[in-house]
Amino acid sequence: MEALKARILAEGQNLGRGILKVDAFINHQVDPTMMLEVGKELAARFAAAGATKVLTAEISGIAPAVMTALALNVPVVYARKTKPVTMTAPVYVEAAPSHTKGVDTFLMVSPEFLEPGDRILIIDDFLASGQTIQALVRLVRHAGAELVGIGALIEKRFEGGREGLADLGVPVEALAVIKSMDAGEIVFEA
Amino acid sequence: MEALKARILAEGQNLGRGILKVDAFINHQVDPTMMLEVGKELAARFAAAGATKVLTAEISGIAPAVMTALALNVPVVYARKTKPVTMTAPVYVEAAPSHTKGVDTFLMVSPEFLEPGDRILIIDDFLASGQTIQALVRLVRHAGAELVGIGALIEKRFEGGREGLADLGVPVEALAVIKSMDAGEIVFEA
Repeated sequence: MEALKARILAEGQNLGRGILKVDAFINHQVDPTMMLEVGKELAARFAAAGATKVLTAEISGIAPAVMTALALNVPVVYARKTKPVTMTAPVYVEAAPSHTKGVDTFLMVSPEFLEPGDRILIIDDFLASGQTIQALVRLVRHAGAELVGIGALIEKRFEGGREGLADLGVPVEALAVIKSMDAGEIVFEA
Repeated sequence: MEALKARILAEGQNLGRGILKVDAFINHQVDPTMMLEVGKELAARFAAAGATKVLTAEISGIAPAVMTALALNVPVVYARKTKPVTMTAPVYVEAAPSHTKGVDTFLMVSPEFLEPGDRILIIDDFLASGQTIQALVRLVRHAGAELVGIGALIEKRFEGGREGLADLGVPVEALAVIKSMDAGEIVFEA
């Protein structure tokens, strides 16, 4: 998606050690019009998947996942990292190790909203090591739902997350694929 | 907003002690089409406010705030509760006491995205005690930006948050105003 790549080059910052700062339009401040276009593009790429629901993880997955679900006209569920007081019944829980924070994050989904028969499209802002997405995949399996695709705005190909998803046998799409962030640069796949 | 009230009556659950569960369409699972309509309605109610930016707090404020910002064609900023690795510079921080959790939550906004000259519309899912919104108001003041309005999807009038916002002198709008949740009911203001 050329508009997203152009935005990353214009406003993204390579902070070193593979960390890409996109706080200006994705992760802290959000450009809602760009996010609407991102959602339409992801929905188009997964048009054939027959998703009945979009699944993401709070926090920064919410905006792109909501826009993708809007374009697909299906509900979206965001896995919670902390248990709200309204989550009273047993939940599915999976751990997602975070290499940047050095601690595990726990992702929770209520069985009410992830059920056998659901066809799940996972959407997140980043596909990097793939740990968060792998945890979401395990939540889908716990629920007996079917995974039909995985989409991200930005892939850091050099972190290898895509390889870990290959065995799942579902399409994996990223709108901006970065192959290298060495030497302060941001280099996209052709 | 009658459609939202109808949805709350159909799918909301009064869990007692003033706790309203709306996990089915706002807080865990999100109905993106309803959220788009919510955003349009909030944008219409604040059309005269001249907002240049929408401000919310993660997590459940994100979806309605993004949709409101989309309708107003302005950026949206969500205050962070945890500091991401990309937030390297000094930030504005304010504490929001949570009466349901019994602990303080800290809300952080980068000065890059909240500046003097910004005209800020605060949007959140709930207006209850008003503590989260008050913390957002203080962040706006720290930045030297101007507050122009406060909007919420659901107001729990009986928690008194609105009274605490009266002195701010800005319009406060809620799309579904609940006056009582006694005896297992959900009773809206007329």
